[in-house]
Amino acid sequence: MGTIVVGYVPKPEGDAALRRAAEEAQLRGSRLVVVNSHRGGREFDRDDAVESESALDEVSRELTAAGVEYEIRQLVRGLDPADDLVAVAEELAAEFIVIGLRRRSPVGKLILGSNAQRVLLDAPCPVLAVKADADAAD
Amino acid sequence: MGTIVVGYVPKPEGDAALRRAAEEAQLRGSRLVVVNSHRGGREFDRDDAVESESALDEVSRELTAAGVEYEIRQLVRGLDPADDLVAVAEELAAEFIVIGLRRRSPVGKLILGSNAQRVLLDAPCPVLAVKADADAAD
Repeated sequence: MGTIVVGYVPKPEGDAALRRAAEEAQLRGSRLVVVNSHRGGREFDRDDAVESESALDEVSRELTAAGVEYEIRQLVRGLDPADDLVAVAEELAAEFIVIGLRRRSPVGKLILGSNAQRVLLDAPCPVLAVKADADAAD
Repeated sequence: MGTIVVGYVPKPEGDAALRRAAEEAQLRGSRLVVVNSHRGGREFDRDDAVESESALDEVSRELTAAGVEYEIRQLVRGLDPADDLVAVAEELAAEFIVIGLRRRSPVGKLILGSNAQRVLLDAPCPVLAVKADADAAD
């Protein structure tokens, strides 16, 4: 059984990535590993942790309803999200990684952030890049 | 029937993208549209055109052998490859675009070229980025 790894953040681009990753897992009969990574440290406080928990509970419910076999990994170990994602993909010999590309509000312009660039370049497997609003071109 | 659009150049990263795109087309029962784009102008001479023709003949044979329904579009109309790829994906309401990420020889370091970045940002659909050597991480 193959493994798809998806980087998740409780934001529109994270939701879009998760939705698409779940579809791919269903299509291929693959297992889904959801990676929610925080560097940790001072900027990650108790409120953030609670918010993250509640978003991940919602993720659990959705994936269970979709009938996808999944695992959620919450990583707070001082690594950048890109490094965590690539490390998990290597460990599991993932088929591919799904990431969401974020829009910089308020102008809504899409940017290729440093995390996305590093995942694209360092990933040991293909990377599927998904936008929050898949129907709108910039 | 869905459509997958793949950017093809007769180089290792183009071959990798094409191979993966053909697998995805088989998996989904989708049609494959192979886009081979040149800006044209002075740097694109008769030799380039012949080399390109011969590579595309090979592509035809491989896709026919794989049983994939396909179409090859050779575009020389003064547009950057990224613009051509995005335009075709928009025209066909593609499910997703497949692109290859190239290695800069001789050091073999992977780079995210301006064409790849523009496809990732401007595409109206998800983009699957594939490396020439899918098993090797940098």
